[in-house]
Amino acid sequence: MGGDHAPAAVVQGAVHAVREHGLRLVLVGRAREITALLAEQGAAREIPVVHAEDTLAMNEGALASWRRPRSSVAVACKLIRQGDAAVLVSAGSTGGVVATSTVRLRSQPGVLRAALAVALPTRPVPTILLDAGANADAKPEMLVQFAHLGAAYAQTAYGVAEPRVGILTIGSEPGKGNKLARKAAELLHATAADTTAGAPRLDFRGNIEGHDLLAGEVDVVVTDGFTGNVALKSVEGAVSFAFDTIHEALTSSRLAKAGTLLQRSALRDLSDRFDSDTYGGAVLLGLNGTVVIAHGASSSRGIERACLLANDLAGGHIVDQVRRRLHTAPRPQSWLHRLSHSEE
Amino acid sequence: MGGDHAPAAVVQGAVHAVREHGLRLVLVGRAREITALLAEQGAAREIPVVHAEDTLAMNEGALASWRRPRSSVAVACKLIRQGDAAVLVSAGSTGGVVATSTVRLRSQPGVLRAALAVALPTRPVPTILLDAGANADAKPEMLVQFAHLGAAYAQTAYGVAEPRVGILTIGSEPGKGNKLARKAAELLHATAADTTAGAPRLDFRGNIEGHDLLAGEVDVVVTDGFTGNVALKSVEGAVSFAFDTIHEALTSSRLAKAGTLLQRSALRDLSDRFDSDTYGGAVLLGLNGTVVIAHGASSSRGIERACLLANDLAGGHIVDQVRRRLHTAPRPQSWLHRLSHSEE
Repeated sequence: MGGDHAPAAVVQGAVHAVREHGLRLVLVGRAREITALLAEQGAAREIPVVHAEDTLAMNEGALASWRRPRSSVAVACKLIRQGDAAVLVSAGSTGGVVATSTVRLRSQPGVLRAALAVALPTRPVPTILLDAGANADAKPEMLVQFAHLGAAYAQTAYGVAEPRVGILTIGSEPGKGNKLARKAAELLHATAADTTAGAPRLDFRGNIEGHDLLAGEVDVVVTDGFTGNVALKSVEGAVSFAFDTIHEALTSSRLAKAGTLLQRSALRDLSDRFDSDTYGGAVLLGLNGTVVIAHGASSSRGIERACLLANDLAGGHIVDQVRRRLHTAPRPQSWLHRLSHSEE
Repeated sequence: MGGDHAPAAVVQGAVHAVREHGLRLVLVGRAREITALLAEQGAAREIPVVHAEDTLAMNEGALASWRRPRSSVAVACKLIRQGDAAVLVSAGSTGGVVATSTVRLRSQPGVLRAALAVALPTRPVPTILLDAGANADAKPEMLVQFAHLGAAYAQTAYGVAEPRVGILTIGSEPGKGNKLARKAAELLHATAADTTAGAPRLDFRGNIEGHDLLAGEVDVVVTDGFTGNVALKSVEGAVSFAFDTIHEALTSSRLAKAGTLLQRSALRDLSDRFDSDTYGGAVLLGLNGTVVIAHGASSSRGIERACLLANDLAGGHIVDQVRRRLHTAPRPQSWLHRLSHSEE
């Protein structure tokens, strides 16, 4: 029921995912509305519907939204808890979906905090940035866990055998950054150097600066949710600003306009690459069940992509992978120990 | 002596600034080298040279660099302290110039920390983002001061009568952000609401998100130096990524290439707008003297621009403006008071 074009675009995307890719889906929301939309596509018998009378409003605060036990997101979480579903896909408000699913699915054992991961359009494979906004105030130990969550994502969704991990900070030399980044980099170095049998490998490559986010130098970039959200939105805003400015420049005169006619297919490829529909959405990692949050403006194609991403993550057993990584990962240092070192 | 093309590009830019704009300059560095370069342009008698035998290395750490009392930056700071110069322009490493000038010029009375301000290419006037990296770990009170520093900059350099100020955070609703941003927003609201006679006006417009940095909705965006540096570099990286990608797409086929011939002048305007040389550089505000840090890769044109910006800031008496604003600004709350409120 979430998203600017819901429920029509969601239902249509789901039908495509089932018919074209053989996915197994359940639709959760107001049953009569959904069934009518399915019937329009002749798909009423292809996808089961589970009723949820309530919905999260797009602008609803996180606190209000998780109080709604009958929202479509809450009911979908219940399906996961019961073992009737493996992944949740929603195009609802990120704050609401994160809050609801965090409370209802709870963190996996050993996970300090779930993190929101997004795929940046680097090549040949996307770079995973996390946390993109679930935890505005993070602790250094959380960033080490985010590295494992991101590595599991890169392996599962993009088949990267040994994901390279970097930390987002403000200088290329070691020791640069704010207190949080400096301490987290220290812990990440220690984790990467840990060769205890059974400890999950972490290929930590050190500092990544803002201008390297799209350079594809690493597969996973970890940061706190405040910095990650600002960086992600700065990148998105700058890319669309550059495109708008170029579009304006290219159509500013009759001659320039004639030029764009000659470039049509090149420009189409390009806009496709930057289309948020192409990547399927942000993924909330570290809960007892995976949550894919599609862009609020998702078309049916965006929903279809989000379902495919969800299917890849579930098929790759990402929850189990995270469990294996974090059960064997060195225990995070205690709160007291951290305080005495990082706040000095 | 600082910058990728120093000292030749610096000397040439200085000569342009003097000849074409009537600026009064002193060049500081290795006198023989500089005098020879001036002679090449027939300008040996137009610009005085002050000798400094030492230079800051581009990759030198902040700590090492401020220990060099005979570096060109240190000697230029001495000229300012003696009243023989008003502004310092350097294309040296940002870390080194910030460290050296902070120690040698010291903060103005009442200024907690100097901040690095950059101009983002919005229209009709640039948006000032600060702090762009001088203070990786900031306190909420500092962000209130940054608002005043940025407002003085927007007034002095761009003639904005009542600069609108926003805070960089991760949601549009009040109360969004990490602890630092939430507390700083609270203090900024209180400052804006303060109508005490003589108190400097602050037009605080609330939250600004990453994608709004280039939207021109406010004239000044305040944030801590870590977030500001990540955001600035993310924007720079994303814009150049978008340009490269578009360039690649536009030259990928013979037809598309033919198209770009038709668009030449439109594309030239555009690349000009994003050229870092156009904006003159970052400005370190809040010291007893202003420091303009030109891009390390500055051409002579970039240096000329940096000198013009420096001249505008000195001519507008920005140091006095900051003094007036911060002398009458409500006293920052005490450390103890802040601690008990913001760390809870």
